[in-house]
Amino acid sequence: MSEILIKNAWFNGSETDLLLKGNRIAGIGSGLNAADGAKVIDGTGKAVLPPFYNTHSHAAMTLLRGYADDMELFKWLNEYIWPIEAKLTAEDVYIGTRLAILEMIKSGTVFFNDMYWLQLATVRAAEDMKVRAAVGVMFLEDASGQLSEANRLSNEELLAHRGEFSERIILTLAPHAIYTVSESGLRRCAELSVESGMPVHMHLSETKKEVADCRAAHNGMSPVEYIGTAGLLNRNLIAAHCVAFDDRDFAIFAEAGGVISHMPCSNSKLASGCFDLARAIRHGCRVTIGTDGCASNNNLSMMDEMKFAALNAKLLTGDPAAAPAPAVYDIGTRSGAAAFGLDAGVIAEGKLADLILVDMNNTLLCGGNLISDMVYSADTSCVDTVICDGNVLMEHRKVENEEEIVTAARDCRRRLTGK
Amino acid sequence: MSEILIKNAWFNGSETDLLLKGNRIAGIGSGLNAADGAKVIDGTGKAVLPPFYNTHSHAAMTLLRGYADDMELFKWLNEYIWPIEAKLTAEDVYIGTRLAILEMIKSGTVFFNDMYWLQLATVRAAEDMKVRAAVGVMFLEDASGQLSEANRLSNEELLAHRGEFSERIILTLAPHAIYTVSESGLRRCAELSVESGMPVHMHLSETKKEVADCRAAHNGMSPVEYIGTAGLLNRNLIAAHCVAFDDRDFAIFAEAGGVISHMPCSNSKLASGCFDLARAIRHGCRVTIGTDGCASNNNLSMMDEMKFAALNAKLLTGDPAAAPAPAVYDIGTRSGAAAFGLDAGVIAEGKLADLILVDMNNTLLCGGNLISDMVYSADTSCVDTVICDGNVLMEHRKVENEEEIVTAARDCRRRLTGK
Repeated sequence: MSEILIKNAWFNGSETDLLLKGNRIAGIGSGLNAADGAKVIDGTGKAVLPPFYNTHSHAAMTLLRGYADDMELFKWLNEYIWPIEAKLTAEDVYIGTRLAILEMIKSGTVFFNDMYWLQLATVRAAEDMKVRAAVGVMFLEDASGQLSEANRLSNEELLAHRGEFSERIILTLAPHAIYTVSESGLRRCAELSVESGMPVHMHLSETKKEVADCRAAHNGMSPVEYIGTAGLLNRNLIAAHCVAFDDRDFAIFAEAGGVISHMPCSNSKLASGCFDLARAIRHGCRVTIGTDGCASNNNLSMMDEMKFAALNAKLLTGDPAAAPAPAVYDIGTRSGAAAFGLDAGVIAEGKLADLILVDMNNTLLCGGNLISDMVYSADTSCVDTVICDGNVLMEHRKVENEEEIVTAARDCRRRLTGK
Repeated sequence: MSEILIKNAWFNGSETDLLLKGNRIAGIGSGLNAADGAKVIDGTGKAVLPPFYNTHSHAAMTLLRGYADDMELFKWLNEYIWPIEAKLTAEDVYIGTRLAILEMIKSGTVFFNDMYWLQLATVRAAEDMKVRAAVGVMFLEDASGQLSEANRLSNEELLAHRGEFSERIILTLAPHAIYTVSESGLRRCAELSVESGMPVHMHLSETKKEVADCRAAHNGMSPVEYIGTAGLLNRNLIAAHCVAFDDRDFAIFAEAGGVISHMPCSNSKLASGCFDLARAIRHGCRVTIGTDGCASNNNLSMMDEMKFAALNAKLLTGDPAAAPAPAVYDIGTRSGAAAFGLDAGVIAEGKLADLILVDMNNTLLCGGNLISDMVYSADTSCVDTVICDGNVLMEHRKVENEEEIVTAARDCRRRLTGK
């Protein structure tokens, strides 16, 4: 079993060693020793922290960063995003997802919960780069209530290969949204989730329009109430956005134990609205953080998301004590891992060996209050080393094949967009 | 005259050379040659952009990053910030300001407009690190309407040495705010500004409470109307925050030609409110961007401020087209320089030689839309080289004396805060 020994790193207020055996944290304490041949990492001047778990992404869209900004949602989708996406091949998805994973690693993220098509390419990219990923079996119906041929084939291909995937890959059921999947389609997802134990991942209450349309079509029910009647409202649900929740929605959702993926940058950039994080916490909701796709963010930094989450909560409530830094860091790390049943997101003996080392000599991290600095001040330059599942994915900010990944993505973007 | 030749850098859509002579940009074009002994910088894979001009800071407060977060403004000031600040020596201000300048250089900022005391230490730090700074002759009165002895001596010391300062140092008149300087004090500042030509730098309309108190005390006038009666409302005014402006305030302020320093992170973190950037632009106001002090932000990244400025404008208006990226980049660069009469903030022949080189191979900058990437995606890791006034302040992310500056700041912070 491979071993990694991290010497003299800052952890919980003092210097210590950490021993990783295989994919678990085997020991934390001073003067630890590793087997001959173990990799030794000098942790001097660095702090050990849990990494980030990104609970909603469309990773391949990293190819479209900056392609279309500062415009209304439907113009953005119809005139810019969808025409490009219609041209994407599996190889494009692979190239775009590798760029996304490179960016995630460089910003300390080791897991992403993805919704896209040509999913086998997403899995291939995650496996090649040794991160964790949840990949959705996607449901997006046309006007007649049928999945497109491409959607069906893409799902079948994913499921046909599932026996080959490592333990780092999780499959979810991913009905896109209540306005793109029929009531019977949603019921079918709920049944499949019960049969298989697979989590359900969907967009929910992203805009006021979605809520108004839902109430008009479904006897005055909010999207939360509506998916409840379809059997989707339970601890196995990961709902992205939830911007337009009212108090009743928060109460029902908290009671059911569903998971919220909060994405303040995307919601602001598309002017969808501001998710009420403080209210969600008050209601006892299980909140996590995601980045959404790069075309509406425009990066995959969970540090950016945490800063926006904390500051937007203060702005929305008028209360500077709302969403304090430790709570927000917890949401970006432990809560995200827990939402997917990962025994990670916390640095402790026996947990999965997922961690980051951050550089305490970086000007952005020398404030003497590490978690505050991570939420309010840090950026990607602070993350020195990233370990996921016992594998070193980045050391001293170097990731394997970085130049080739960036070059391939740039060539692919030019081919697709002409820019 | 010293020369710097930047070869093969990306500029306005193609590769070119830039020649700097002394403190000016002498030429832009292909195949440029420099004198023997000129410094040559390889710009391959990098883009040339204007650097950032930070129009409101309390630089020395970088020592207090993360010392007190997530609490109400007056508790924050009375129980945490002011007790520490009361202990600060000139050496502490020097150490804290050097840390701030290091962070600014690493994030591409070459100018800051500062309001603090023991200002000679601020000037010393700026001179040593070769950045531009505007430093305020500060006015903060006690209940009897007098400047404190310390405030008076600190101003006298600053003014006594002004003949020794380089051209990179600008002095301003800095009445703290309408609630800390009497009407006669404000009038005196206005007179001094007319006599000397010095700009006036003050906090204005930061909170709703400031506006309500002003209306109650001054015949229903808003802070903007009130300072107008004191003679301060003109093109020489830099007003920080302006969060609580109403439509009439925006119209009066735009008509007078004053400059606004917009600080979205600080305003959100202290829950002061959201400055209406889109409305300010519509009114034709001269808007610039600042970071405020690090204790309420908690960093000095103008890239963070630009992202928050753009996204908060979209969130506030519900319009995703509000505050588009090019306008926001312009506000953070050209407008900030212009506000202080600096012939900089634009890359063109004859302009002051202030510029940054950013790394186009950084994952955060490979989106094919550079200005969008700089506003929505970039962070400090993207800034490779910083040149101010013809001096190279950072090359390949290395700044002179970086380790010593961080160590001195950490020691000073521990001495002051015990953390």
